[in-house]
Amino acid sequence: MTYTPATQDQLLAIRVNAGIEELAKSEKFAAAEPDMVEAIVEGVGQFAAGEFAPLNRVGDLEGAKLENGVVRLPQGYSEAYDNYVEQGWNTIASPAEFGGQGLPFTLACNVLENLGTANMAFNLLPMLSVGAIEALEHHGSGELQDKYLPRLVSGEWSGTMNLTEPQAGSDLGALRATATPVEDGEHAGKYLIKGQKIYITWGEHELSKNIIHLVLARLPDAPDGSRGISLFIVPKYHVNADGSLGPRNDLRCVSLEHKLGINASPTCVMSYGDNGECVGELVGAPHRGLMAMFTMMNNARINVGNQGVQIGERATQQALYYAKERVQSARAGSPDKEPVAIVEHPDVRRMLLRMKALTQGARALLYYTAGQVDRGVLGDENAKARGEVLTPLIKAWGTDIGTEVASLGIQVHGGMGFVEETGAAQHWRDSRIAPIYEGTNGIQAADLVTRKLGMDNGQALISLTEDIARDCADEPSLFALAGDCAAVARWMREEASLDDKLAGSVPFTTMMSVAVAGWQLVKQLRAIEAGEAPSLAKSKQASVRFFLDRIVPEAAGLRAAATAGAEGLYAIDTDALLG
Amino acid sequence: MTYTPATQDQLLAIRVNAGIEELAKSEKFAAAEPDMVEAIVEGVGQFAAGEFAPLNRVGDLEGAKLENGVVRLPQGYSEAYDNYVEQGWNTIASPAEFGGQGLPFTLACNVLENLGTANMAFNLLPMLSVGAIEALEHHGSGELQDKYLPRLVSGEWSGTMNLTEPQAGSDLGALRATATPVEDGEHAGKYLIKGQKIYITWGEHELSKNIIHLVLARLPDAPDGSRGISLFIVPKYHVNADGSLGPRNDLRCVSLEHKLGINASPTCVMSYGDNGECVGELVGAPHRGLMAMFTMMNNARINVGNQGVQIGERATQQALYYAKERVQSARAGSPDKEPVAIVEHPDVRRMLLRMKALTQGARALLYYTAGQVDRGVLGDENAKARGEVLTPLIKAWGTDIGTEVASLGIQVHGGMGFVEETGAAQHWRDSRIAPIYEGTNGIQAADLVTRKLGMDNGQALISLTEDIARDCADEPSLFALAGDCAAVARWMREEASLDDKLAGSVPFTTMMSVAVAGWQLVKQLRAIEAGEAPSLAKSKQASVRFFLDRIVPEAAGLRAAATAGAEGLYAIDTDALLG
Repeated sequence: MTYTPATQDQLLAIRVNAGIEELAKSEKFAAAEPDMVEAIVEGVGQFAAGEFAPLNRVGDLEGAKLENGVVRLPQGYSEAYDNYVEQGWNTIASPAEFGGQGLPFTLACNVLENLGTANMAFNLLPMLSVGAIEALEHHGSGELQDKYLPRLVSGEWSGTMNLTEPQAGSDLGALRATATPVEDGEHAGKYLIKGQKIYITWGEHELSKNIIHLVLARLPDAPDGSRGISLFIVPKYHVNADGSLGPRNDLRCVSLEHKLGINASPTCVMSYGDNGECVGELVGAPHRGLMAMFTMMNNARINVGNQGVQIGERATQQALYYAKERVQSARAGSPDKEPVAIVEHPDVRRMLLRMKALTQGARALLYYTAGQVDRGVLGDENAKARGEVLTPLIKAWGTDIGTEVASLGIQVHGGMGFVEETGAAQHWRDSRIAPIYEGTNGIQAADLVTRKLGMDNGQALISLTEDIARDCADEPSLFALAGDCAAVARWMREEASLDDKLAGSVPFTTMMSVAVAGWQLVKQLRAIEAGEAPSLAKSKQASVRFFLDRIVPEAAGLRAAATAGAEGLYAIDTDALLG
Repeated sequence: MTYTPATQDQLLAIRVNAGIEELAKSEKFAAAEPDMVEAIVEGVGQFAAGEFAPLNRVGDLEGAKLENGVVRLPQGYSEAYDNYVEQGWNTIASPAEFGGQGLPFTLACNVLENLGTANMAFNLLPMLSVGAIEALEHHGSGELQDKYLPRLVSGEWSGTMNLTEPQAGSDLGALRATATPVEDGEHAGKYLIKGQKIYITWGEHELSKNIIHLVLARLPDAPDGSRGISLFIVPKYHVNADGSLGPRNDLRCVSLEHKLGINASPTCVMSYGDNGECVGELVGAPHRGLMAMFTMMNNARINVGNQGVQIGERATQQALYYAKERVQSARAGSPDKEPVAIVEHPDVRRMLLRMKALTQGARALLYYTAGQVDRGVLGDENAKARGEVLTPLIKAWGTDIGTEVASLGIQVHGGMGFVEETGAAQHWRDSRIAPIYEGTNGIQAADLVTRKLGMDNGQALISLTEDIARDCADEPSLFALAGDCAAVARWMREEASLDDKLAGSVPFTTMMSVAVAGWQLVKQLRAIEAGEAPSLAKSKQASVRFFLDRIVPEAAGLRAAATAGAEGLYAIDTDALLG
């Protein structure tokens, strides 16, 4: 299966939607000048297609396997990870003082996009490490940073996030893992960690030399609920004062989940402190672990939204190649009745263009979001707020369209799509985790209609719809959708109860996402009309028009559902619901 | 996992949407009086839940396996099939002269619904046999009927449909299997069949004592294309004059497909005539095989749409039970902050009600369609035409919502939904074949906007939107959607090119389906208000209102896509599409 990195469309989005040239004017991001940006986007695209992509199918077929406590990956994974580290792709957006390149988050997004398009399951390894780096960067003491960051940044070590317990999924306040202060001895001042964590992505493996687990647990005096959770760093191997690796810590992978997809990514049940000797160090203040975790979760949500773009791109390319090769039936009404490649049939073309339009729309939204986050880092408070409003959009809608596009990819393949050999089914299976993890899409939608809708007295969100309406007065469908979004937002702020808002949150999130993605696509189109990326001109015109003429009006159809309220949902009691 | 047959909702749909009492007034269907109907619906529901459902998960885990040319099913399948045959569930709608009960198709639908809700993969065995029975019933000679029908009807033998070849999927005209007349000897007057067929569902197994393959092939003098295809009956074991089984015919299962789902259903590559000795008998006239096949395909399409209802019901029940058990987080804004079962959270409830509403809507559409088919059999030409218009709707939309509902089922489970142990993922995987086989949903949509839209000068379809508008003047969303459908139909007939129609065919199919399903749900609601099925009253009210207030307006949002035309799809050439 041929796979070509979407370099040109990525560069367009990085320029137009993230506004990389403006970012490079800042001192902090001065290194992000055009040549460097192109070198990164092209370089990581080639690397990912060459080294990660060929391992995608074997990863699905063989998967990660637990053997005597050790997780084994299929042949080639270890070498590819070594090459990834050696070429420095892990260091893009990390701080220079710890060996990073200090480049914008926008470019880190691009590295992840390319790696994940090539191999979504494998890419979770770098993706989780980024989260650990961010948590330490923002909340770790200087000592912890010096000890852990250089080798996390290089990729020599990898990182994990340990939140979930069987009884504590979306509700982290319910977690029970404990941390007991060590009074004396070698580990005085540290903590003994005890508990079981589930769904730990890449929780155990031997691709990196050490695994740095970030673990949420409760101190002995912790208050109940989410205000009593602290964050600990718990390495697989102890790290000696000179930086060398010490003995193994008391933690282990108990089992791997048997999952629907992303089989090359070991999803571990982790047990900490079976022998009462699992040592961890506190990150940040006691009881403030959730806040620290949220720091890393914000960008992690964008990174999961990115996975929707990734799977969308991969599925679209695969379907396009198949549709161009597969000859079946004559065009309806054709006089010669000669069979044609199915790409010539109107409905197949509709599916392919829908796949392209959704994927490109999500990509435009992704880089727009990343650019706002980068501006926030530079001190632009409006951009920071905008980035916060956009985060649930790219996470929820980005992953929803990832699954939809992968499903269309199956449909384009017909019967061959249901047969695993083609790989179309793998994309669909892989895609399905993204709407769930890192906060389900329902939780993203709740975040949008509560916290984000409340920001700056509603203005943070309303200003977004105003920007769209102002910029797109000449695109009737988009102008109308922006108006619908504003009307729903107004209703939610002024008339709706909390339950009403939540009842309409998911359709509203889709409406907002489509409006913003459509707007960002229009910006791309205008840039192209102004001479940018001429090689993309025809393709972009077709996909943007598809988006505006078909996808945008469809989203407007969600207005009734967004404002239908909660009463109908509770008109029936639980038992009658079961009946 | 508890699973309860949806007996009450099925009975409601059979009464209100299929109109069983009116059918029972005919001489032909006089046996379908209320007690009999209830006995069947309750009986097959209990049977399916008791015997087929427990085999669903093991079927997914172990699957069908090919060992030395023999297909093995997991333990229990053979016994369950024997019990199915013994209890006579295979005989419902088959002609009395061959041992059938001569009951309406509506009740055969109900048998399939219950079996398939319990075990979608297993149910394909009876479902395919029904197709073979119908083809023989309508196109076989008296001799062929006497020879094959009694034991196909009882279920002692099973049937298959052999259409697809690697180069001939949707385009059956491209098939190459051959049939050569036998001049003398034991098989004089019969044909030697040669060729390979793919995607043959239950093509080989040992649950039934013989397998009757219906095979499309070309006679030596056959014209090219679809007008040169004949239908043959090719038994796995020859049948002697006295009805006993003779030696094995020259056909074999070469391999099984490794599929995304329905793993208990062996999907076979079949080879006919490896040794030049595969004998078949012609069914119907030479070169008219496609027409004969279409007879059985019409009902088969309804039966596949039925699978959407099945998987929707099963996924909904599973999600409901999970949501009632799983305690996580307090209700937003609750003063006591006590965690509640997730069924109490607004967005989870929205998902559950959406699952119920879509499933019940599809069920109402299914039985409405079946009832029209039954009236057609009784000679009502309008009903026959209506049934033909409805067939692509239930096939396409029924299977689309099957996949959507199963996906929502995963989402309700959160992280547990992605772990195979819960079974939610299996439903989603299983569901994905239904939009593909028996004519992809794109082909259904093409059928709607070409052949069906053209019937009776457009009146066959338009009268449907008129009926909805007349009946639902007091339901604004539905009245509006019926108007939208009529407007799209008018545009397609009066202004659109063939390509334009095809470009809008899938969104139009969804609009029409939602309109009809909404209408049929309104009919159910009115019947309930008039005293029917009081135990369902509250639940039905909630799901119908959900359908009308949220799902119907969403479908109206597709009007722009339905009328956007084909020009935008061809504004870009194939190479640029790949770029």
